[in-house]
Amino acid sequence: MQKIMLSHGGGGEEMNELINGLIFETFNNEILKDSNDSAILSLGSKIAFSTDSFVVTPIKFSGGDIGKIAVCGTVNDLSMVGADAKYLSCSLILEEGLEIFELKEILNSIKKTADEAGVSIVCGDTKVVPNGSCDKIFINTSGIGEIICDKIELKNLKVGAKILLSGDVGRHGAVILASREELALQSELKSDCKPLKNVVLDLINSGVKLQCMRDATRGGLSAVLNEWANFKGFELKVYEEKIALSDEVVGICELLGFEAYELANEGTFVLAVDPSDEQKALEILQKYNSLASIIGEVVSDKKAGVLLENAYGSSRYLEPPKGELLPRIC
Amino acid sequence: MQKIMLSHGGGGEEMNELINGLIFETFNNEILKDSNDSAILSLGSKIAFSTDSFVVTPIKFSGGDIGKIAVCGTVNDLSMVGADAKYLSCSLILEEGLEIFELKEILNSIKKTADEAGVSIVCGDTKVVPNGSCDKIFINTSGIGEIICDKIELKNLKVGAKILLSGDVGRHGAVILASREELALQSELKSDCKPLKNVVLDLINSGVKLQCMRDATRGGLSAVLNEWANFKGFELKVYEEKIALSDEVVGICELLGFEAYELANEGTFVLAVDPSDEQKALEILQKYNSLASIIGEVVSDKKAGVLLENAYGSSRYLEPPKGELLPRIC
Repeated sequence: MQKIMLSHGGGGEEMNELINGLIFETFNNEILKDSNDSAILSLGSKIAFSTDSFVVTPIKFSGGDIGKIAVCGTVNDLSMVGADAKYLSCSLILEEGLEIFELKEILNSIKKTADEAGVSIVCGDTKVVPNGSCDKIFINTSGIGEIICDKIELKNLKVGAKILLSGDVGRHGAVILASREELALQSELKSDCKPLKNVVLDLINSGVKLQCMRDATRGGLSAVLNEWANFKGFELKVYEEKIALSDEVVGICELLGFEAYELANEGTFVLAVDPSDEQKALEILQKYNSLASIIGEVVSDKKAGVLLENAYGSSRYLEPPKGELLPRIC
Repeated sequence: MQKIMLSHGGGGEEMNELINGLIFETFNNEILKDSNDSAILSLGSKIAFSTDSFVVTPIKFSGGDIGKIAVCGTVNDLSMVGADAKYLSCSLILEEGLEIFELKEILNSIKKTADEAGVSIVCGDTKVVPNGSCDKIFINTSGIGEIICDKIELKNLKVGAKILLSGDVGRHGAVILASREELALQSELKSDCKPLKNVVLDLINSGVKLQCMRDATRGGLSAVLNEWANFKGFELKVYEEKIALSDEVVGICELLGFEAYELANEGTFVLAVDPSDEQKALEILQKYNSLASIIGEVVSDKKAGVLLENAYGSSRYLEPPKGELLPRIC
């Protein structure tokens, strides 16, 4: 068995071999090995449930691969609503002809990241499509977590909230862009792809009053701030010099004409906290990333918009992203 | 907006329009409209969790489409472990150029089937890949249900259990096969694709002692019986004349050289019950499908295998399916 064949998806012996021999052995846990149609789980009565499909190209990039991002993406979505991520599903769509060693690498990456994030892969599915009907491998992860802090939801955002950012922005999008444009980068720019579970648990356990959180994935920081502004018709004010950007990201954006605030992140999040808690929240964020900062606040409920003020005191509205962004960055 | 464009997957305004304007409006519920990164749900403490990706081709077939099968597949996996299916995720991978009217049809089919099965679509994800990087549309549904009857698991299968089948077999696989081979069928053969939630709730509520259940999807009846035989090393005896087959399925199998017991089903399931309950279980199954029957029993724990006995009393072992089955039937 060196390559994926159509028979690996047919429901017969070859599929059993792939699933029992490779996938179950990699993810190794009793729930999977019980071989039921569904995983059977015991959880608290209030849970979070999230899903994401991953189609990133290339499937390996500086700082991660499609397996790592598939775990981080769903774990982070669960963290963003105050949930302790516990269980993931893993559903694979494989292209006929995919090399088994490539699949193994990705499965190992999923396993490693899941271990880091303290989650188990408890159910899955495998489909094989003919050569040319998909691009190497697509992964869906869905996840379940226990809500450990109530009411961290977008509808709880209030005027006066302080807005913080957990690190610099644009790295994941810039890495994917650079790899596609075959920019022979001198730099060591790496995707920010990582699980956010621990930093979020730390914030919650320290008692910081979190109003809402969001990881800045597709559409980047700009999409998150504009969604927050539009959801309840709030004006947000953000200080441009507080938003950390690496020189490499700035360089790639200048070269290719992208807006760094619109580039995707896969391990950087935005949070809104009660004003009294801004310093406490900042200290916790900075334990995990020295570039974390307080970037602004919710200033008014009179109109919807994101006002971006630069170091010289002049300001402009940050438009929501549109048109030719980067598809397939996650 | 007539076709899917790459910008529908970029995280900007076009994606918002697609998600808020088309998808949320179709699935219409408060949990989706809260626009959080995860759905927040209240459930009992013991739950079932399942996932399936769907890549069926063609995406419309006699008796269903990829949207209907995506809901049935996951709802049925939850039912098979004694869970009352409650919530589904819906994750779409769309090919650039897909007609919006086609997408609308599929979303409406998902909505209609979800309503029939009494489940809500509470979270989702949408990715767009360039023309040629996937085949029209792939759908992942994951689902959560509350366990309402404990211990319906493969490990509870016992020697002496009676094995029942909820209807005739092979229709879904035969329909897909016929559509691909461009067989101009005179017949009205339809896929068996349907949610099994109600018949399973009925069995549970009537107190039938269910040992385990499985819907006979990829690999068909043959895969299920062999998996049951091999899981604990049991011998199963099955009476061939008790297995219902439509004339059309028999005809297609003879014409194309397939084994009907290996063809996929999407609304037909196998169940093992305590011997004292076989008649009660049969009566309930027959309320939903007059072709339901008692097909055999678990006869021994001395060796693993599925012994198939024909009407003349001669018998053969039913081999597990292998090799060139039908891929992309679900």
